[in-house]
Amino acid sequence: MKFVENKVGRLIPEYIEGIGALKPFTGIFDQEVEGRNRSQLKSRALPGDKKLLDTIKDAVEKSGLKDGMTISFHHHLRNGDYVLMMVVNEIAKLGIKDITICSSSLTSAHDGLIEHIKNGVITGLHTSGLRGLIAKEVTTNCILPTPVVFRTHGGRARAIESGDVQIDVAFIGASCCDEMGNMNGKFGPSAFGAMGYPMVDAQYADKVVAITDNLVPYPAYPVSIPQTLVDYVVVVDKIGDPELISAGATRVTKNPIELIIAEYASKVMIKSGLVKEGFSFQAGSGGASLAVAKYLKDYMKENEITGGFASGGVTSYLVELLEEGYFKTLLDTQTFDAKAAKSFEKNPNHIEMSASMYANPHNKGCVANNLDIMILSATEVDVDFNVNVMTASTGVIMGAQGGHPDTAAGAKLTVVVAPLMRKRIPIVVDKVTTVITPGETIDVVVTERGIAVNPKNKELLAALKETDLPIMTIEELKDMAESFTGKPEKVEFGDKVVGIIEYRDGTVMDVIYNVLT
Amino acid sequence: MKFVENKVGRLIPEYIEGIGALKPFTGIFDQEVEGRNRSQLKSRALPGDKKLLDTIKDAVEKSGLKDGMTISFHHHLRNGDYVLMMVVNEIAKLGIKDITICSSSLTSAHDGLIEHIKNGVITGLHTSGLRGLIAKEVTTNCILPTPVVFRTHGGRARAIESGDVQIDVAFIGASCCDEMGNMNGKFGPSAFGAMGYPMVDAQYADKVVAITDNLVPYPAYPVSIPQTLVDYVVVVDKIGDPELISAGATRVTKNPIELIIAEYASKVMIKSGLVKEGFSFQAGSGGASLAVAKYLKDYMKENEITGGFASGGVTSYLVELLEEGYFKTLLDTQTFDAKAAKSFEKNPNHIEMSASMYANPHNKGCVANNLDIMILSATEVDVDFNVNVMTASTGVIMGAQGGHPDTAAGAKLTVVVAPLMRKRIPIVVDKVTTVITPGETIDVVVTERGIAVNPKNKELLAALKETDLPIMTIEELKDMAESFTGKPEKVEFGDKVVGIIEYRDGTVMDVIYNVLT
Repeated sequence: MKFVENKVGRLIPEYIEGIGALKPFTGIFDQEVEGRNRSQLKSRALPGDKKLLDTIKDAVEKSGLKDGMTISFHHHLRNGDYVLMMVVNEIAKLGIKDITICSSSLTSAHDGLIEHIKNGVITGLHTSGLRGLIAKEVTTNCILPTPVVFRTHGGRARAIESGDVQIDVAFIGASCCDEMGNMNGKFGPSAFGAMGYPMVDAQYADKVVAITDNLVPYPAYPVSIPQTLVDYVVVVDKIGDPELISAGATRVTKNPIELIIAEYASKVMIKSGLVKEGFSFQAGSGGASLAVAKYLKDYMKENEITGGFASGGVTSYLVELLEEGYFKTLLDTQTFDAKAAKSFEKNPNHIEMSASMYANPHNKGCVANNLDIMILSATEVDVDFNVNVMTASTGVIMGAQGGHPDTAAGAKLTVVVAPLMRKRIPIVVDKVTTVITPGETIDVVVTERGIAVNPKNKELLAALKETDLPIMTIEELKDMAESFTGKPEKVEFGDKVVGIIEYRDGTVMDVIYNVLT
Repeated sequence: MKFVENKVGRLIPEYIEGIGALKPFTGIFDQEVEGRNRSQLKSRALPGDKKLLDTIKDAVEKSGLKDGMTISFHHHLRNGDYVLMMVVNEIAKLGIKDITICSSSLTSAHDGLIEHIKNGVITGLHTSGLRGLIAKEVTTNCILPTPVVFRTHGGRARAIESGDVQIDVAFIGASCCDEMGNMNGKFGPSAFGAMGYPMVDAQYADKVVAITDNLVPYPAYPVSIPQTLVDYVVVVDKIGDPELISAGATRVTKNPIELIIAEYASKVMIKSGLVKEGFSFQAGSGGASLAVAKYLKDYMKENEITGGFASGGVTSYLVELLEEGYFKTLLDTQTFDAKAAKSFEKNPNHIEMSASMYANPHNKGCVANNLDIMILSATEVDVDFNVNVMTASTGVIMGAQGGHPDTAAGAKLTVVVAPLMRKRIPIVVDKVTTVITPGETIDVVVTERGIAVNPKNKELLAALKETDLPIMTIEELKDMAESFTGKPEKVEFGDKVVGIIEYRDGTVMDVIYNVLT
């Protein structure tokens, strides 16, 4: 293999069998665009044409799915998803092989894929993240013939729109759908909220199959995905387990370390001057991130500040901010929990957006670009401010890109919140195991023992130095971490690339090698 | 010129200079589709990029508009539209020439175009309809170098999606818009309701300019057209005259002849067996059409029938049916009047749809295909049941295709309502002046003196013969009309093609020649 060093210092193979040539990352807004996006397959429909099919098997057959094709799914049903496995099981039964799955993410609901990967039914995975059993099998046993392609939420939309990924058949679980395929995730026993991911798939896939457990009289509304984009509709008993669908809820932490981090982070935000009338805000769904929102709220109340929009990944905590009037609107690509889904159902200012609108860098403007403040978590941060949220210190895959690199690049102020160490493993390190979000998009790292400002943000550094916050360099932060934990042990990697970290613009930020056990 | 006779017996030129080869109409669902639709121009946006421009002139310049290009508009502002003329006036001032306008329709608000056509600024018009001064200038003085291309609402969406029309710059008037271009027609002093037409333009035009008189804090919602599709935003004083925007209201007729027609038509509908629980219905906005809805309502009340959806062009009369519970939903591509716009604002079951979803025959299914009953008006009907709604008996253009051919092709039962004559001009004739909607899509013609069933609909004919309705052949209807009016005078046409009637599938239904005066 020949390698090229990319802008964050990682060696990127020039070519990977089954994937093709890799384009190394050269800078966050470096990629120019030209030409045209992928176009829709022409279709036509006659009055009386029926889309309702009896079984998923019928839909797979009618869709024309063949060996070597790419199918897509969304992960709005989270750990409760039944759709992906139902479809892949049918594909396997039909003897179809060599299928690539392009899912917005994969969860523990998809451990059943291991068997199909081993049998050659599934030979490629594109996803935001991977955890648990599959992730372990991929990283340590190299069960996939090609590396997993990890994309950000915005990058996935970009890849689909640009034609970098060509979806042959999109299978879209909908909690509310009519016989013509108009659908939403707002109503029904499996309601999950916004359906931001498949809105993109439906527009660009050659064939689109809606799968629902709640067929409603025509027309289903609101129309998140319209009938004009849907070929077939299949009704199943259940598209998911409602308890697991709505279990994305994260409670605000009571962990004292996380509370300190959150308090520091909120002071950083306030000191940045960005918390003012009409400002916009997003926070990841980790405990510390959510706690930041709590401190933020106190400050907004005291100073009578109303924000413009909060976006996400919408949690019940953001819903509280909306319903109590702290923010005027929520922009939602993915609704995390039952309370947030309820808000999406009833609040007109809780607004659904596609993943492209959320974070695609290659359209005419995404919401991430309009963010003032973004609070992000981290598995590791290094002295170049690069962030890892994908691999554990053991080298094993256990995370997801999500909107992390998208929002970090788009927001005016990106704050990473993380404890200095976790279970005697340092979080601030020399070099992160895997680079997900490049340091040039991170403004400040907040831990419970110290805060490091990226030197590129001179203004923020000067402002924070005036406070009593424990400001230090990132190297000092790293040294402090290591003083408690010692130097972290080196992981022993193999020489097989098992994962490709694609940046939102399609270039390669890093690759993940197999771990020797 | 060489000609080919099409399926409705019209001679279609094989080729027209400036337009290209014409494909004659061969049958309503005859055109197969293959290949892919037009694709979007790739774009990208950086954080901090501004879309707000000071003037329309700036937007025209920034859009890269050049001689020979195609620009698009919508007619949701009806006779009150200021947008089209503001833009074209700026284009003229900039010295740009040879521009084709692709508008969803043109109204009396656009008479100012005559000057720009005469000066060579505008050399092509694509529209659903043309009336008044421009229509007269086009038909009698041949002011345009190329014929006007008349498209149906569904056909326009098809042409844009397929790439038959390539829009370089779409100028979209919005009554509510934010600085990133998220927009709707629901709110603001110039609120006009659904924005079904430009939803298509925005997706396929290379550049998109939003023009608003109501810039709201980010994000504007609901999002009828998202920021991802918009390049520039211009704020103007007024996008239209609110009184004329909302003046599409048509009152239910008190004309006794129209009331007889409406009563007959409602009896025909009821006898067809289609008026039953969950049925769907659309009516044109003419007096008799609306009166049909009134009779229908009485029947539905008496028989405790609730319809599934009514669609359109939504009028206040359809809103009454919705709000009184006679229909569960309205599917709205264009909101006709102030009361309907109010309903769109407040009723979640008053649902916006794009023109493609409404009526495009070449997508995965349009709403017109789901219609049970369609009530349409006519300027002329001939003994082959072909309908003209475009040219007067004088040969002068004075109408619009609208959704007429779309819904006639899609609905299970298409009822044409018209008086037998208007001001001593017969409506049922040997051959219509211009064929807009082919007879094979018309089931029955209802006049105040007789009802003619298309012989292809044998069941309906048999059912209606059991009633006391005045059932007769279309020839008898024509003879009766002529017995009152005499044979209509022949119009003297020239040999210049001034209009092309494109059927919804892109084939040519008819051409309009200049009228000698």
